[in-house]
Amino acid sequence: MSFRFEVEGRDGSARAGRFFTPHGEVETPVFMPVGTVGTVKGVPQDTLEELGVQILLNNTYHLYLRPGVETVRRLGGVQKFMSWERPILTDSGGFQVFSLSDLRKVTEEGVAFRSHLDGSSHFFSPESSIAAQIGLGADIIMAFDECTEHPAEYKRTKDSMEMTLRWAARSKKYFEAHKQEVPWFSSAFNKNPRPRPNGGLERGTQTVDGDPDGAGITTLSSRGGLQPDEGSAFSSSQSTASGQTQALFGIVQGGMFPDLRRESAQRTLELDFPGYAIGGLSVGEPRPMTHEMVDAAIRFLPPDKPRYLMGVGTPEEIVHYAAQGVDMMDCVLPTRAARHGLLFTSEGRITIKNARYATDESPLDPACSCKVCARYSRAYLRHLYASNELLAQVLNTIHNLAFYMDTMRNVRQAIKRGEFGKRFHHGGTEGTESLGKEI
Amino acid sequence: MSFRFEVEGRDGSARAGRFFTPHGEVETPVFMPVGTVGTVKGVPQDTLEELGVQILLNNTYHLYLRPGVETVRRLGGVQKFMSWERPILTDSGGFQVFSLSDLRKVTEEGVAFRSHLDGSSHFFSPESSIAAQIGLGADIIMAFDECTEHPAEYKRTKDSMEMTLRWAARSKKYFEAHKQEVPWFSSAFNKNPRPRPNGGLERGTQTVDGDPDGAGITTLSSRGGLQPDEGSAFSSSQSTASGQTQALFGIVQGGMFPDLRRESAQRTLELDFPGYAIGGLSVGEPRPMTHEMVDAAIRFLPPDKPRYLMGVGTPEEIVHYAAQGVDMMDCVLPTRAARHGLLFTSEGRITIKNARYATDESPLDPACSCKVCARYSRAYLRHLYASNELLAQVLNTIHNLAFYMDTMRNVRQAIKRGEFGKRFHHGGTEGTESLGKEI
Repeated sequence: MSFRFEVEGRDGSARAGRFFTPHGEVETPVFMPVGTVGTVKGVPQDTLEELGVQILLNNTYHLYLRPGVETVRRLGGVQKFMSWERPILTDSGGFQVFSLSDLRKVTEEGVAFRSHLDGSSHFFSPESSIAAQIGLGADIIMAFDECTEHPAEYKRTKDSMEMTLRWAARSKKYFEAHKQEVPWFSSAFNKNPRPRPNGGLERGTQTVDGDPDGAGITTLSSRGGLQPDEGSAFSSSQSTASGQTQALFGIVQGGMFPDLRRESAQRTLELDFPGYAIGGLSVGEPRPMTHEMVDAAIRFLPPDKPRYLMGVGTPEEIVHYAAQGVDMMDCVLPTRAARHGLLFTSEGRITIKNARYATDESPLDPACSCKVCARYSRAYLRHLYASNELLAQVLNTIHNLAFYMDTMRNVRQAIKRGEFGKRFHHGGTEGTESLGKEI
Repeated sequence: MSFRFEVEGRDGSARAGRFFTPHGEVETPVFMPVGTVGTVKGVPQDTLEELGVQILLNNTYHLYLRPGVETVRRLGGVQKFMSWERPILTDSGGFQVFSLSDLRKVTEEGVAFRSHLDGSSHFFSPESSIAAQIGLGADIIMAFDECTEHPAEYKRTKDSMEMTLRWAARSKKYFEAHKQEVPWFSSAFNKNPRPRPNGGLERGTQTVDGDPDGAGITTLSSRGGLQPDEGSAFSSSQSTASGQTQALFGIVQGGMFPDLRRESAQRTLELDFPGYAIGGLSVGEPRPMTHEMVDAAIRFLPPDKPRYLMGVGTPEEIVHYAAQGVDMMDCVLPTRAARHGLLFTSEGRITIKNARYATDESPLDPACSCKVCARYSRAYLRHLYASNELLAQVLNTIHNLAFYMDTMRNVRQAIKRGEFGKRFHHGGTEGTESLGKEI
């Protein structure tokens, strides 16, 4: 198995655990920063590592348009492309097609759309989305789904959910037939002959044919038998990922109807994925409805598989969802808000452009140990933002990500110690309500 | 003395040495990156430290307009404001007034101008420029001069040079009367009582009165007797700078006339500054003329004082100027070019947006050990730039600065070893001509 999930602790509905991917393991619950086109805007990869970022999300729609799937594939996949040796997840491209592109037309076959960059025509189907995601080579990829708009009538929501189920089956069928085409499955072997346990030298494609699950290769790798390409400094990820395949997650839809969420969960489960996402939420509905829909889906998802709530949320929300039993989350909020000068702190939210910070010598968040809070004053950060300086976006993003990473680290620790209910008051947001306060 | 310069090695006209400022020492020849409004665009301060940046240049014009001198002064000066514990140099604001502001009007008294930000009216005189630079608190500050336009007739150039000489005298007079007003001269003492060698506790202003050159304070500091303010994490620079004053440099003008350069040098020297800049060059004249004017000035500058050639240059040019005996240089070129995708490498210049780099897995510069070249491929940097991503500007700037820092480190080493002539062919650009090549 290239993907494995272990639950290590529970506290109420919350769970702490870890999953294993071809590019390393990830402790859960985890927040995944968004690196849309292969970069978390403004933050170098070594800084992301220092922040404890375990896994990134890349957007298939964006990478498909620029630099193109074939370019990333030729460069060894997204991890090698962006020199990020840790796990990556790609979405299916469906959500961006619905939210960003022009003139989209949805049929049973898929979605025709025009690029938001140059107006060029494209088509995404379950098959082409999976093909793109295999070419990009993220560790976790997503079934192609339709994110039902909100509000939507019951009939429309059910029809959309049914199509998502058919698309999930097509996604999985295509994936199973093509999963060994992921760039890091055998590229290291195609480039360099490797020693085999029998002492001979074989090319990867031959190795792969005779050893489809890559188990022998992994063993060899763990013995240090694999060397990075000598001609490149960027290929070390291949040595651990070779012979492994991606994990394809299914997505539960069903809009704002609990019975459809239940049906979607149960029928997606029948397709048997290694993990399940909950999609179509945080699309404009009130938060109590989000919580109800998350519960309606989660109660029918298997306890031994990770649950990924897509596109959430604020610091207080991600704690709440973890309390509901969510294991994975992603959102542009910490990074996008940072670029707009909205900063999350243990004392509440700070709008850094506010003139009151012009001579404030204190750090952004006295309780934060990130390198921004350790070094710079609010006055300096306010000046950078007011002066429209690049460094404002860089430093603000680093801090907000540090705040999210710290929040999830505390959540994981509290769950494992059985203190999550006590520390975070799960089921409500009492323990985190100050996070939403504007200070 | 708060400022001291030592020549440690010579090779031809080139010299290697170091100068000492209230915020630390600087090895020369040195290239000073430009941090216009208190930030090198896109690069965090810890990264600048890693790159070996020894001293930054800040622009008085920009900081005067935003956040304002009084704000920076209240925050302890530019070093503390931007959390840069190493030396900083400010220009006089004159050049920016001439190049950026609208509706400027020059009189003997000074220059009236309108802000390029909001059109508001302002006036810089030698006195107000020095007052602003004392308030900002850089380690080295510059006399207020007129940068003569190019081309200019002899009469016009001489008149301008004469006014710069009168302004230099006024700059120095104001500085001598007000130099103890620099924010870090006594602020740490005003805030916290300090133990004195006699065992008593005194406030800084009293200490300063009785100990004008700060020697006793410095000794105390070196014994660890000074503690940073407990209420702030940002004040450690004060403990070493307290009791010291800034160094005011004079500026040689004289346009493109060797006899005026000579006269300007000789008469500026009579005013007795701790260092001398050569201004009004690299303003559109051909390079051989620049070289001639540098020589015309330098031959009349004292060998025991640092020489600062303002606003230069390309990698090959800074090597050439070092060969001519220049000790300090600054230029926006490495940072501005980086933001426009022009990268300097040991093999020549790279325009990273070029499609030929789209699948180029090699590092920007195989001979460079910076963290960009150690981690990222040209393909990734090309993608970031083509996608207009923030990280392109960040990484490109880091590399170009690394290239400049490495170049000057090699120059210093070669001078000290007596290998400069051999390695860099000073007097010409033969040894560095590949740097200017587009690859």
